[in-house]
Amino acid sequence: PETKLPKVGTTIFTVMSQLALEHRAVNLGQGFPDFAVPGRLVDELARAMAEGRNQYAPMTGIPALRQAIAAKSERCYGRKVDADAEVTVTSGASEAIFDAVHAVVRAGEEVIVLDPCYDCYEPAIELAGARAVHVPLDPVDFSVDWQRVKDAISPRTRMLMINSPHNPSGAMLSPDDMAALAGLLRGTGIVLLSDEVYEHIVFDGARHESVLRYPELAERAFVVSSFGKTYHCTGWKVGYVVAPPALSAEFRKVHQYNTFCTFAPAQFAFAAMIEHEPEHYEQLGAFYQAKRDRFRRQLLGTRLRPLPVPGGYFQLVDYSAVSDLPDTEFCRWLTIEKGVASIPLSPFYETPPAGQRLARLCFAKEEATLDAAISRLEAL
Amino acid sequence: PETKLPKVGTTIFTVMSQLALEHRAVNLGQGFPDFAVPGRLVDELARAMAEGRNQYAPMTGIPALRQAIAAKSERCYGRKVDADAEVTVTSGASEAIFDAVHAVVRAGEEVIVLDPCYDCYEPAIELAGARAVHVPLDPVDFSVDWQRVKDAISPRTRMLMINSPHNPSGAMLSPDDMAALAGLLRGTGIVLLSDEVYEHIVFDGARHESVLRYPELAERAFVVSSFGKTYHCTGWKVGYVVAPPALSAEFRKVHQYNTFCTFAPAQFAFAAMIEHEPEHYEQLGAFYQAKRDRFRRQLLGTRLRPLPVPGGYFQLVDYSAVSDLPDTEFCRWLTIEKGVASIPLSPFYETPPAGQRLARLCFAKEEATLDAAISRLEAL
Ligand SMILES: CSCCC(=O)C(=O)O
Ligand SMILES: CSCCC(=O)C(=O)O
Repeated sequence: PETKLPKVGTTIFTVMSQLALEHRAVNLGQGFPDFAVPGRLVDELARAMAEGRNQYAPMTGIPALRQAIAAKSERCYGRKVDADAEVTVTSGASEAIFDAVHAVVRAGEEVIVLDPCYDCYEPAIELAGARAVHVPLDPVDFSVDWQRVKDAISPRTRMLMINSPHNPSGAMLSPDDMAALAGLLRGTGIVLLSDEVYEHIVFDGARHESVLRYPELAERAFVVSSFGKTYHCTGWKVGYVVAPPALSAEFRKVHQYNTFCTFAPAQFAFAAMIEHEPEHYEQLGAFYQAKRDRFRRQLLGTRLRPLPVPGGYFQLVDYSAVSDLPDTEFCRWLTIEKGVASIPLSPFYETPPAGQRLARLCFAKEEATLDAAISRLEAL
Repeated sequence: PETKLPKVGTTIFTVMSQLALEHRAVNLGQGFPDFAVPGRLVDELARAMAEGRNQYAPMTGIPALRQAIAAKSERCYGRKVDADAEVTVTSGASEAIFDAVHAVVRAGEEVIVLDPCYDCYEPAIELAGARAVHVPLDPVDFSVDWQRVKDAISPRTRMLMINSPHNPSGAMLSPDDMAALAGLLRGTGIVLLSDEVYEHIVFDGARHESVLRYPELAERAFVVSSFGKTYHCTGWKVGYVVAPPALSAEFRKVHQYNTFCTFAPAQFAFAAMIEHEPEHYEQLGAFYQAKRDRFRRQLLGTRLRPLPVPGGYFQLVDYSAVSDLPDTEFCRWLTIEKGVASIPLSPFYETPPAGQRLARLCFAKEEATLDAAISRLEAL
């Protein structure tokens, strides 16, 4: 019989990583750091294994980790959350998004997503029997036109997904955005899903407008984050969701029968890291800002034009001075012929803006990696 | 709005583990070992972390692990499987079951399950918008009445789930069962899901009738297993599915957008363990048989009547000589008043057999733990 997910192929991140490998390209495509995990995290994980923390964790996550997440929420965003009723540890932010959608979205309903967006949103929505309604962000600065979002709301709208700092653009929502969003949702039954996996990677003194700062939003929201981005371990796949008790209860019904629980020793390690080394996440913005600034300076020596990067670890570049190829072809060419892998933007859209000539480069890399990429890009 | 999963509460395994903790009971409820993970596995995992294997694994699993699983399939069950097209690593067998259901079962379809069965089957089916059709196993020996299964098939039947060795009874399917099953499915489009997580825990020289031994079945099946049961690490949540290329392709579409990939360092560790210490899984039956036999001898000194245990690490006991309470109440009482936690069978059923007085005890425990439980059970 026919497939349930006709639009789904292999994700662009896998496609480009494979192509990079085949052609020995410097891989600035798929978003992952190429430097080490903090030593303490590795040590704590090894310790947890040695101490026999190898059996099922509680389905919701170990109490110490949920408490650490709750304490961080209060410390960073001024929101007291109940570690028992409002925090659930998941097998990465992907699982959190998948479970949140399946927990509340029913067949025939609609979920509004803002394009460009991460490619796991729509398949989760479709598997729930619902439909993704795509609202484009501004093609130049990736800001949200809230009137367009409002126009997209229908009686079937069950959920709205936002993402700040934004993948792929790095754009960040402002306090004005949050006010507009609150106005929009007021009086509706729409659930908000806020993907905040890059929450600690913000630059130039900007403040991350977590939904957790806004009680009116937080009371109807799933706030999703990931330790993979914060602790340089994307392959560990530990994330979490913070949501009010009623939403958390529905979320847990799905999570309980999807993965049940998450690799237990890592939960002990993250609990210790958050508690004992808060400076790690506090200094993450500065750590990445140095990489961003250096990489942007280097890009000025190429014919790629870097767009602003308010947050996250991706640099968008306009390549129209180099090539008139559509982005997917350009990124293939750049990988195969020039030895630098990037990610095209069109897979993040239902309808890519005509003539957009942007590629995404990940700068979560050692200086040597970025230098190698730059020397190849200078030859364009 | 109302819940999408009205029947789902907190899983009985969590409920009984919490009750055990509160009342300092010996916990023979939730199925997990209380002894150490093999030393090599811990060392290999630590090594993988130290070597920087901390970023996204390939979505399907690392090649070395998929190849080790394929080699084991051939070695144990005589089936050559294609490591690239037919093996996918998952975040535990639970995720594998969830993804398999979502990959092929559509809203309005039916999935046949054999009661008693593990409690994650039905919620996955319901979330896919489908309906679980329950066929009871024999209440005495937990054998399958294939005529009843046949009678349950309708034009809407999309999937049939089997589980051998069986949780909670330990019953195992025989070659005759496999022949009957093949006859039943022949000419239909029904997909088989075979939950074989206890595949290596079989006793008395019996042979595990993996679906992988039967080409006619394997070509329409998802075969699910778990390293948690085989390597004493239920909290690591690494499992896998073996399925023919077309089913694997659909499975991966869901997996890619559910958890994407599984804790990477553990994948390296399991690949090394399977390749270098095959004796671990080869000797697992003997290891658990010694525990089973000792525990059963001890139970003869109590008023609980042990049922046969062909496979798995659970011992069913008939408690009718001790109490006439329904099983859920009996298990609560046994935990609170007598200090031994077990699992009642009724949560494994849509309609529990009237008057059944059985409880499940997990014997994947140190001798000291089992001794402590027995001394309390002797006082019944
Ligand atoms: C799961 S692979 C994608 C990684 C990522 O977050 C990105 O590159 O955007
Ligand atoms: C996920 S908790 C349940 C563990 C288990 O497999 C069982 O006890 O049957």
